[in-house]
Amino acid sequence: MFAEIKGLNEECGVFGVWGHKEAAHITYYGLHSLQHRGQEGAGIVVSNGEKLQCHKGLGLVNDVFGHGELEQLHGSGAIGHVRYTTAGASDLTNCQPFLFNSQTGSLALAHNGNLVNANALKHQLERQGSIFQTTSDTEVVAHLIKRSGYETLEDRIKNALTMVKGAYAFVMMEEDKLIAALDPNGLRPLSIGRIGEAYVISSETCAFDIIGATYEREVEPGELIIIDDNGLRSEKFSLSPKRAICSMEYVYFARPDSNVDQINVHYARKNLGKELALEKPIEADVVTGVPDSSISAAIGYAEQAGIPYELGLIKNRYVGRTFIQPSQELREQGVKMKLSAVRGVVEGKRVVMIDDSIVRGTTSRRIVKLLREAGALEVHVRISSPPIQNSCFYGIDTSTKGELIASDKSVQEICDEIGADSLEFLSVEGLMRGIGRPDTEENHGQCLACFTGQYPTEIYPESDHPYEKV
Amino acid sequence: MFAEIKGLNEECGVFGVWGHKEAAHITYYGLHSLQHRGQEGAGIVVSNGEKLQCHKGLGLVNDVFGHGELEQLHGSGAIGHVRYTTAGASDLTNCQPFLFNSQTGSLALAHNGNLVNANALKHQLERQGSIFQTTSDTEVVAHLIKRSGYETLEDRIKNALTMVKGAYAFVMMEEDKLIAALDPNGLRPLSIGRIGEAYVISSETCAFDIIGATYEREVEPGELIIIDDNGLRSEKFSLSPKRAICSMEYVYFARPDSNVDQINVHYARKNLGKELALEKPIEADVVTGVPDSSISAAIGYAEQAGIPYELGLIKNRYVGRTFIQPSQELREQGVKMKLSAVRGVVEGKRVVMIDDSIVRGTTSRRIVKLLREAGALEVHVRISSPPIQNSCFYGIDTSTKGELIASDKSVQEICDEIGADSLEFLSVEGLMRGIGRPDTEENHGQCLACFTGQYPTEIYPESDHPYEKV
Amino acid sequence: MFAEIKGLNEECGVFGVWGHKEAAHITYYGLHSLQHRGQEGAGIVVSNGEKLQCHKGLGLVNDVFGHGELEQLHGSGAIGHVRYTTAGASDLTNCQPFLFNSQTGSLALAHNGNLVNANALKHQLERQGSIFQTTSDTEVVAHLIKRSGYETLEDRIKNALTMVKGAYAFVMMEEDKLIAALDPNGLRPLSIGRIGEAYVISSETCAFDIIGATYEREVEPGELIIIDDNGLRSEKFSLSPKRAICSMEYVYFARPDSNVDQINVHYARKNLGKELALEKPIEADVVTGVPDSSISAAIGYAEQAGIPYELGLIKNRYVGRTFIQPSQELREQGVKMKLSAVRGVVEGKRVVMIDDSIVRGTTSRRIVKLLREAGALEVHVRISSPPIQNSCFYGIDTSTKGELIASDKSVQEICDEIGADSLEFLSVEGLMRGIGRPDTEENHGQCLACFTGQYPTEIYPESDHPYEKV
Amino acid sequence: MFAEIKGLNEECGVFGVWGHKEAAHITYYGLHSLQHRGQEGAGIVVSNGEKLQCHKGLGLVNDVFGHGELEQLHGSGAIGHVRYTTAGASDLTNCQPFLFNSQTGSLALAHNGNLVNANALKHQLERQGSIFQTTSDTEVVAHLIKRSGYETLEDRIKNALTMVKGAYAFVMMEEDKLIAALDPNGLRPLSIGRIGEAYVISSETCAFDIIGATYEREVEPGELIIIDDNGLRSEKFSLSPKRAICSMEYVYFARPDSNVDQINVHYARKNLGKELALEKPIEADVVTGVPDSSISAAIGYAEQAGIPYELGLIKNRYVGRTFIQPSQELREQGVKMKLSAVRGVVEGKRVVMIDDSIVRGTTSRRIVKLLREAGALEVHVRISSPPIQNSCFYGIDTSTKGELIASDKSVQEICDEIGADSLEFLSVEGLMRGIGRPDTEENHGQCLACFTGQYPTEIYPESDHPYEKV
Repeated sequence: MFAEIKGLNEECGVFGVWGHKEAAHITYYGLHSLQHRGQEGAGIVVSNGEKLQCHKGLGLVNDVFGHGELEQLHGSGAIGHVRYTTAGASDLTNCQPFLFNSQTGSLALAHNGNLVNANALKHQLERQGSIFQTTSDTEVVAHLIKRSGYETLEDRIKNALTMVKGAYAFVMMEEDKLIAALDPNGLRPLSIGRIGEAYVISSETCAFDIIGATYEREVEPGELIIIDDNGLRSEKFSLSPKRAICSMEYVYFARPDSNVDQINVHYARKNLGKELALEKPIEADVVTGVPDSSISAAIGYAEQAGIPYELGLIKNRYVGRTFIQPSQELREQGVKMKLSAVRGVVEGKRVVMIDDSIVRGTTSRRIVKLLREAGALEVHVRISSPPIQNSCFYGIDTSTKGELIASDKSVQEICDEIGADSLEFLSVEGLMRGIGRPDTEENHGQCLACFTGQYPTEIYPESDHPYEKV
Repeated sequence: MFAEIKGLNEECGVFGVWGHKEAAHITYYGLHSLQHRGQEGAGIVVSNGEKLQCHKGLGLVNDVFGHGELEQLHGSGAIGHVRYTTAGASDLTNCQPFLFNSQTGSLALAHNGNLVNANALKHQLERQGSIFQTTSDTEVVAHLIKRSGYETLEDRIKNALTMVKGAYAFVMMEEDKLIAALDPNGLRPLSIGRIGEAYVISSETCAFDIIGATYEREVEPGELIIIDDNGLRSEKFSLSPKRAICSMEYVYFARPDSNVDQINVHYARKNLGKELALEKPIEADVVTGVPDSSISAAIGYAEQAGIPYELGLIKNRYVGRTFIQPSQELREQGVKMKLSAVRGVVEGKRVVMIDDSIVRGTTSRRIVKLLREAGALEVHVRISSPPIQNSCFYGIDTSTKGELIASDKSVQEICDEIGADSLEFLSVEGLMRGIGRPDTEENHGQCLACFTGQYPTEIYPESDHPYEKV
Repeated sequence: MFAEIKGLNEECGVFGVWGHKEAAHITYYGLHSLQHRGQEGAGIVVSNGEKLQCHKGLGLVNDVFGHGELEQLHGSGAIGHVRYTTAGASDLTNCQPFLFNSQTGSLALAHNGNLVNANALKHQLERQGSIFQTTSDTEVVAHLIKRSGYETLEDRIKNALTMVKGAYAFVMMEEDKLIAALDPNGLRPLSIGRIGEAYVISSETCAFDIIGATYEREVEPGELIIIDDNGLRSEKFSLSPKRAICSMEYVYFARPDSNVDQINVHYARKNLGKELALEKPIEADVVTGVPDSSISAAIGYAEQAGIPYELGLIKNRYVGRTFIQPSQELREQGVKMKLSAVRGVVEGKRVVMIDDSIVRGTTSRRIVKLLREAGALEVHVRISSPPIQNSCFYGIDTSTKGELIASDKSVQEICDEIGADSLEFLSVEGLMRGIGRPDTEENHGQCLACFTGQYPTEIYPESDHPYEKV
Repeated sequence: MFAEIKGLNEECGVFGVWGHKEAAHITYYGLHSLQHRGQEGAGIVVSNGEKLQCHKGLGLVNDVFGHGELEQLHGSGAIGHVRYTTAGASDLTNCQPFLFNSQTGSLALAHNGNLVNANALKHQLERQGSIFQTTSDTEVVAHLIKRSGYETLEDRIKNALTMVKGAYAFVMMEEDKLIAALDPNGLRPLSIGRIGEAYVISSETCAFDIIGATYEREVEPGELIIIDDNGLRSEKFSLSPKRAICSMEYVYFARPDSNVDQINVHYARKNLGKELALEKPIEADVVTGVPDSSISAAIGYAEQAGIPYELGLIKNRYVGRTFIQPSQELREQGVKMKLSAVRGVVEGKRVVMIDDSIVRGTTSRRIVKLLREAGALEVHVRISSPPIQNSCFYGIDTSTKGELIASDKSVQEICDEIGADSLEFLSVEGLMRGIGRPDTEENHGQCLACFTGQYPTEIYPESDHPYEKV
């Protein structure tokens, strides 16, 4: 479903390239393929070896870079960012990458994730005389780096990162190098690729395909990657890193053509659908998925259950930002937006509707209603993940705990509220089986906090009113 | 696939509503759902009972109507048009609806189709003193209506339509009525719906769903529908109408959630895929479809063949008009646009790639290449329609006959050219079985001219250089 | 003053060039210098000898042609138009030049003026089967040309022009020639210039200066100018032409750097100011003019009267279309727009405020108030033309007679209404002396109809509700 | 003349209002009237008593605030800024006001002027751990305020201002107060006005007129003005302030309807013209001024010399940003932009052309050429200020000393270079007499540094490569 309907939003994608003479263009295409991770703002900083140069703006990558801006961004290194924001449309200040100028050199940063102790650190920095121009936790990291007493940038970054807690995938750039860093739990995805002699860093591997890069490896939890004209070096800044990658990347966020930590997202989702069919079968005529994110799970459910998979719901491709909202009266008369049920497919049928998750329940209720109005006899909702009962503090906008329908309602109560004939969720075990991550010493599984409430890091008191995430 | 890649373009969609106090808004939502039939221009004419008022412009419906324009269009009757055009971006003149003012009243027209004798008629009209402001065949019809000696508009329209040959679905409007007309072969789709007391007319039924209208019936071949404040009347203007609806509406153009002449498009396509699996089986690991138009056929093929259906190709949702084309060098390096192969799905697999049609072959070649680069072991192309060997003169831009790869190449030659391991087309019989139209006295089948060369109307010499279609 | 404040609007400017390889660019610069004659729409048609090509749009010349459109307009002949319109913002249909396509060739027309018998002609044409797509009288002329039985275009145009009455300056273009025509009274200005081998035609000579052209001569009343690759020819289509050029061109419309029928507009205005000082002297401390159109007259008044000329009123240069109107409350609090009185100049002074004309009186009242609020002791308004008491039917939008404050109010009543200490107008004789046109057989004076009610042509009954002028 | 032609640019205007419920709108109109001081960017910060909110953007005030942005800015306090910038179009980062957020409150700053020791201070701050996001000297002041140990904002600001040298007019705002500060030499203008109970601060008094405010007094050199809900307080932060206001505000920058330090700009300029006529008379037929800034001086010259003042040069009002530059060939053919000579006025005449200043001489050369091409017999250039021979370090972009034509050329050499028949400048004494500032203890005269090289403050070595000014 559309992010704005769902109330479940990935927050940002990062990209970087070093050693390619069309670095800004490469970053532009990369950001394009990460556009689903943030549609509110986009930015690119390039380095020509001597100077960093920035362009950023509100809107889609094409809105920001579609008018010749790339031609002004010269250099063989670049980092970029796409941003999801809860703030007003005019809030360009928080757009990334941030570029900090100093008389001894400049530093650019782009961040995906959320720091759970940003407020405490900011208090401390302000007491020491720092001033802040944004409300972003990323600016806190810049101050920590600047104030660190160490000599080299790498050491200053490592020093700064020991002080921050939470989820982060950083790409940073100075005039002569690009640096990537992943938090010790590896909560957010970050991959390394190559395109000829150049290195690329991306939140998702789908960016590699679009630019013709080959996949190299993941950035490891607690790892600092330094790329300069001498190639790539790795340093560790955490003693006990262990991967706890966000489950929702597989369930909902990442593109189906990405591999997240080496597992293809489409197959993971299809497997979730199969597990769901095994756990929660139902007798029905057709299986349909809520486009676009639940299509793979629906295919898997149908295949496992032996029920035909059909296009029972269609997304209106041309609904843009300026789409005119129907008046209350027209809405009551049935004017639809974004999503239509296919009468020819669902009329007179018992329908299994697969969705990947339920956040507040409002979207599910609307879709069930759409299907009934189009003539469905029965609507059985099957969710390819467990109930979301806890807030995320690691960079996903799940709404507050109070808004999560599953935080205080039983499955039957939710079923009643959304008006389905039956409702079932996948179990946590089913989720883990479906994604199929190996459970090894260093790489044991994934973050399940929003389902189980067990957070892989400390959670600060402030976290309940999370700092604006970036 | 994207229309601009395919070289196969539907030309226009029409919509009308009479008797609804938010007629302009209703038409806006209707045109939205017809947007796939034309993305180059859009227009709406409203009637408030005394006066017709027009707004039209270049671009998507939202581009044209997204800035408060609807608020200026008052009235309870409206007709609208979305346009595909081959002409330059600034060619607003040919945008529809056309609005002709006269001191005794005004007439608005919107047209989907193509008249095969427009040039001959235009010659004759010019000799009689008519002047033309557009290059559109629609303007010819307006002149014929104006010059007809009959008294009532209905009679003048009927008189004019006896003189034109070809394919047309018209919606027209005067201050106090809305009129729809379909050519005697019923080559283009045109349906009637109701929303409360109001009547709606649309090229496709998907528009009814978005506005909450219920389907009433098809406009019949050779039928004139007159809707005014007294309700709906029907008149016939052709002695021997017989339906020969365009096959490509089912194969490629119409939205899967539309019913075209009462047959659901998704199911028709799925059946074409099943027929294709029966006719042209192949041993393989995965079936994938070219998004968006071939998804249904791929699901059908997979289901029939018992091979898993997977998302092997992904369309980049955010490629807009302003997407910056990669430089030649970047393109060679592999920068992709619009479509990506999903490495995780196709790598090491024998892939059946379902597409709905092949026009010039260039797109197929690119997609086969994408799949191979993503690691597919074998790529077997299956096309869910017969080879297109003849130009269409009824409103589809199929390129000229010489550009049609199937017009002078054998299937094996095409297979070699697109680089597939095997290539097969559906037979004409398979196409007819798949769509499954009843073969009755008045409604026997569909237009197959682009496959067979048998045109349901006379074809004028001029037709080889078809008049600019609208 | 700003046209929109004044309620007195010139309607359109025309331009043409033949024989210059950058014809579209030349026309663009020419239209720029005619922008004061119409800010609502602009258009250019070019001929490359084989084909006419059009681009037009709503807004200023730069809005319409500022994004690369000129690069698409190739050819060595071009005509252009800037338009003033009373209709809604979206009314592109009436924008000119009009381009009429026919299988034997195309014809483009651009028009400045107004035809007084357009409605009668249109009735007649519609009865003969013509259909109209615009509400413009220009389209009537196109139909008359098309329907004329004569062989050559020149003869058809001459035949058509014998049937129309009123004011017109036409530039027209076929593939291989440019034609200009001026009505038999020469009511509107139209001049011929040269730029190298190329000929240019323009509503005002200021366009010649901006493009580096030299002035050749006026188009004569009742003259048809034909320019093609063989040079320029002249034909007469009226037996008794006599110049009666619009006085308001001198008083208000034309740019001060134009010569209208060989008389410099700045000097004409300055002389009007001098005549006014002689006729209507007053004891005062400063003379100020309402910018921009009354500056010259104010300079003349000051010079003649021996009172210092000062900048007592300043126009805000950056008030654009999107300027946000103050709320009622802010307006009452004194938020100004467009025009400010210069406190430092007028405070404690007896001020003579020179304006070129009074239409409805509302603007004058506002300016008097501005001056008083800025501390002026006395405000004496002097108008450099006689009272406007009659509607214009020749292409000036003077509002209807009923809205003209001078149509039913005495000078003293107007003075009271605008709140001035004294008010005086220039006499008709003063106006004629000031402009100083020679009174010869063929060129005797100017149109004074809006002052005297004596119209140089027949006035049709319809004229009281004038057809939409172009 | 146009700033971009002249190479002489005012840098920025500031505005503030406290205690008005439509503070954002008031600031919008105020910035409008200051638009001539900076056309590259605009911004407004509002306070609703609890929170500061910012919107800023590139372009004119209307570009930035013309689409409903003001409706989002609620509060009764506001500050605003218009900006001139030498940097690239996309450089939004340096747009003002700057807004610094901190957990104990926020601070917004807008600045007109230039600090001469900003680089030295920045070095020092960076060594102490500060990081900078802009290249603006204004950010330096924010850091100094933040790091000051004093308790109240007023004390921290005063402490910070004792450390900076140069020219500055600041308006700042916290949630509950507005603060204005002027440097100890009062180099830049800054005035206080009232509108009902509300106070307003503006770079120029013309802003008071547009919003209906009354003038109260100047901000004094070295004075800190604090405005909150209790009214206005004043504090001094400099022991020996003395006014040395920039002469060029009178000569060129300020609007003629502003009073700068209580002297009307139009009259000052007119007097400069009179002084010039007395010092440097010449026999001639007409006097003309270069619009817009030299009109007043030309009127004064004409009045004193008894030579008629005429509109010999006209500015094209509609040349906007998107005006298409003529190709080299068209330029050679004489296509003009921006400025036209009025042939009817200057042909066959001896012309005195008044300009306010000469920077690089290129503009003067072009205008002399324009006049000659329009037929002027003689062109005598008279400049209403002395030769500019030195760079300005106080916020005026005069180009570097090397580019100043008068820095190494004699008057005769300049005359030859611009192609005039004669050239004369006003003397420094004439300038002082013309402006007529009282010479008192605390207010003795004005800054003449660009003419004489005597700077009223220390000039740091860095100043020769001035920090980017704001």
